[in-house]
Amino acid sequence: MHLDPREVRIIGVKLPEIKLGDDIGYLIVDACIKQGVKLEEGDIVVVTHKIVSKAEGYVYRLSDISPSIFAERVSLELGKDPRHVELILRQARRIVKMRGPHIITETIHGFVCANSAVDLSNVSGGDMAVTLPEDPDSSAMKIGLRIRELTDVDVAVIISDTFGRAWRKGLTDVAIGVWNMKPLIDYRGLKDPYGYELRATVVAVADEVASAAELVMGKTEGIPVAIVKGVRYEKGEGTYRDLLRPLEEDLFR
Amino acid sequence: MHLDPREVRIIGVKLPEIKLGDDIGYLIVDACIKQGVKLEEGDIVVVTHKIVSKAEGYVYRLSDISPSIFAERVSLELGKDPRHVELILRQARRIVKMRGPHIITETIHGFVCANSAVDLSNVSGGDMAVTLPEDPDSSAMKIGLRIRELTDVDVAVIISDTFGRAWRKGLTDVAIGVWNMKPLIDYRGLKDPYGYELRATVVAVADEVASAAELVMGKTEGIPVAIVKGVRYEKGEGTYRDLLRPLEEDLFR
Repeated sequence: MHLDPREVRIIGVKLPEIKLGDDIGYLIVDACIKQGVKLEEGDIVVVTHKIVSKAEGYVYRLSDISPSIFAERVSLELGKDPRHVELILRQARRIVKMRGPHIITETIHGFVCANSAVDLSNVSGGDMAVTLPEDPDSSAMKIGLRIRELTDVDVAVIISDTFGRAWRKGLTDVAIGVWNMKPLIDYRGLKDPYGYELRATVVAVADEVASAAELVMGKTEGIPVAIVKGVRYEKGEGTYRDLLRPLEEDLFR
Repeated sequence: MHLDPREVRIIGVKLPEIKLGDDIGYLIVDACIKQGVKLEEGDIVVVTHKIVSKAEGYVYRLSDISPSIFAERVSLELGKDPRHVELILRQARRIVKMRGPHIITETIHGFVCANSAVDLSNVSGGDMAVTLPEDPDSSAMKIGLRIRELTDVDVAVIISDTFGRAWRKGLTDVAIGVWNMKPLIDYRGLKDPYGYELRATVVAVADEVASAAELVMGKTEGIPVAIVKGVRYEKGEGTYRDLLRPLEEDLFR
């Protein structure tokens, strides 16, 4: 397929419901064949973290969780289930802000987000919680290597999640795991179309791709994967850590 | 053209260099015809603010700017040109944070961003600065109505700019002007694919579309416009103000 260099395509891929131990790389390749989507060199495969967490077993039954004394106390403050708070604290390395019902933490990975990205659901008939994968880069790598093994095609992989932001309303998807691409593009020192040097401009291309992928995933359609074609990015080793602003450079933590 | 509902396409559109008074709506329609891009009902036309600011005259020669006493003092602190600081202050209603060379302000529009979004350039042989349009929603409306007048097609329009974020490295594009769409999608009360109610989930679709559009615009290609096809969004009156978190709800201001 020929892609105009000035065109990006984002194609949603439906998967069956994911269970513990499922081979997501295989399921993506299988679904792409069934849906007539051709995987090509340079494509970015975006996978919502929820299905990765399910396949890897980061799913908890709340009735199995014993809250600590601190979790009990904080749960009163927040008006949340103390077992939910216990999981939020277990996933946190720092509480960044608490006010009203909101708790913003820095997760064990270094993400700053609400509730340590611990999602509650009552899927499967009990009160369950899902946390982020422990090592989202390696989750991404596993999927990417499996796709390469099955198709001989070299793709990049992003694991995405939906985060809130400071100052702006509404959530957007960001990259919480990255494989086979540099998540930032550094334009510093380059010239603009009129020959002038660009100001310091480092673009978070992996976050932009995650946000673009959310446009086909939606929240209600059961589309946990998107194939993104035509994006210019730098190949090579990358990690979600490249996207984390170090504490000492951060004016808002 | 038939679009699979699970596919989004983002097509970059080149324009000639924009000058004061240029009719951007006309130039977009003209460029689409020349480039074989068909504008269709429901398309979102994303326009980088820089060309809007140029067409509307929000371009300043630094030698025409007299810094205030406060701007002079702050410029020493920040290590910036005092005339640049004067423009930053004129565009601000509040200084949110100052540290080292960084100044984060809340602009007259309510955006929280670095340098009040005042960009410096040395285009056209002098030290020039560009500020955001004064009323970016009405800039978007003007372009959208002109496109409708010329093509009889009803599109939505987003004016975009590149902003930094708290906590995460790298910049992403966001919507700073909106017309003919709701910039947020509210999924609250809807069910997920398994029949369970979604948690509070309000997605900033206009920001995700702006980020997606940046993927074809890049920084060095001279592509200031993208046509985004296949996005599901709510039609109707919308404004960039819908994307601003009110001060009292904001934990980080």
